[in-house]
Amino acid sequence: MARMKVLFHVNETERWQRALLNIINFINDAGQENVDIEVVANGAAVSAYADRCFSPKGSCRAAAGCGNANENDIIDQMSKLAEMGVKFAACRNALRAQSLDENTLPSFVTVVSAGITEIARKQAEGYAYIKP
Amino acid sequence: MARMKVLFHVNETERWQRALLNIINFINDAGQENVDIEVVANGAAVSAYADRCFSPKGSCRAAAGCGNANENDIIDQMSKLAEMGVKFAACRNALRAQSLDENTLPSFVTVVSAGITEIARKQAEGYAYIKP
Amino acid sequence: MARMKVLFHVNETERWQRALLNIINFINDAGQENVDIEVVANGAAVSAYADRCFSPKGSCRAAAGCGNANENDIIDQMSKLAEMGVKFAACRNALRAQSLDENTLPSFVTVVSAGITEIARKQAEGYAYIKP
Repeated sequence: MARMKVLFHVNETERWQRALLNIINFINDAGQENVDIEVVANGAAVSAYADRCFSPKGSCRAAAGCGNANENDIIDQMSKLAEMGVKFAACRNALRAQSLDENTLPSFVTVVSAGITEIARKQAEGYAYIKP
Repeated sequence: MARMKVLFHVNETERWQRALLNIINFINDAGQENVDIEVVANGAAVSAYADRCFSPKGSCRAAAGCGNANENDIIDQMSKLAEMGVKFAACRNALRAQSLDENTLPSFVTVVSAGITEIARKQAEGYAYIKP
Repeated sequence: MARMKVLFHVNETERWQRALLNIINFINDAGQENVDIEVVANGAAVSAYADRCFSPKGSCRAAAGCGNANENDIIDQMSKLAEMGVKFAACRNALRAQSLDENTLPSFVTVVSAGITEIARKQAEGYAYIKP
């Protein structure tokens, strides 16, 4: 089977769970070794990367002042997928619009100068586009 | 005119009506003989295939215990489009997540192992992607 | 850098603001001289082209009987982007479904016989697809 390249575009926070489930099902079906996956978040969706409860060491429930287990689960899932080779990108314009400091993002997140440019470039490289 | 290949991705039940209207307008415009159309449903949207009122013979209003004419209209429209060559696919993961038995789906529905794989494969084959 | 070709698909009125912001950020990032951008509106989204307050000469606030500054801002933004080379298309089926007279649309809007055909054709020409 030819290698499959897929870009997922997420621009609303409520779409993250669906996007991550899509990715998990896709990897299980096609095989981790056969896929190149990139997720590009812009708009409101970049806030999921900046969950205040995230820490490289601890879980949400262990963090002080954190009551939103759901958000942290998303970061946990992203982190596991990143370890499996999934790339996560954040649009710098969107981060600025929400006053999010890109230096505080999880290390698996790459900041791109503009989400749309990244999405267009990947499609030009042969990536399929999917909007969960 | 070159043959036009289009994939429609439907992952929310409320998008079906819009998707089917898009397809009808597209066929009317480009000509049935010039298009290859596939619809891939995943997520909540697969439930539209499993309308309890659907039967190959009767209408919704004739079926016992069925009060949702709207859902049945969607199945009727799908069935007519299928006769015109439109392919309808359902993601197996989504069917399982909703406890839907794939053996009870209308005969025009093809079950695929993962909706995302199917969408990626079709784009690699030159299908345009459209999210209604 | 190779020329970047991007098609934006807008089918809900509430997505216009996001779409236009995406386009502005994209142009700022990639450079106006390096991009070919087309926006195709179908469904409910075509109504934004037909804002009753729009006039080639005046602003919304100057027009009689117009209280919706927000809508007019959108037309203003579209108009500026059109001057920068962005193409705006409207689906004729959608215009008819909303009883909108295509002769009253701003001059920068091109009416196409079917939005889906236009989107499919552009992707076949190498345009990336983006759904804001």
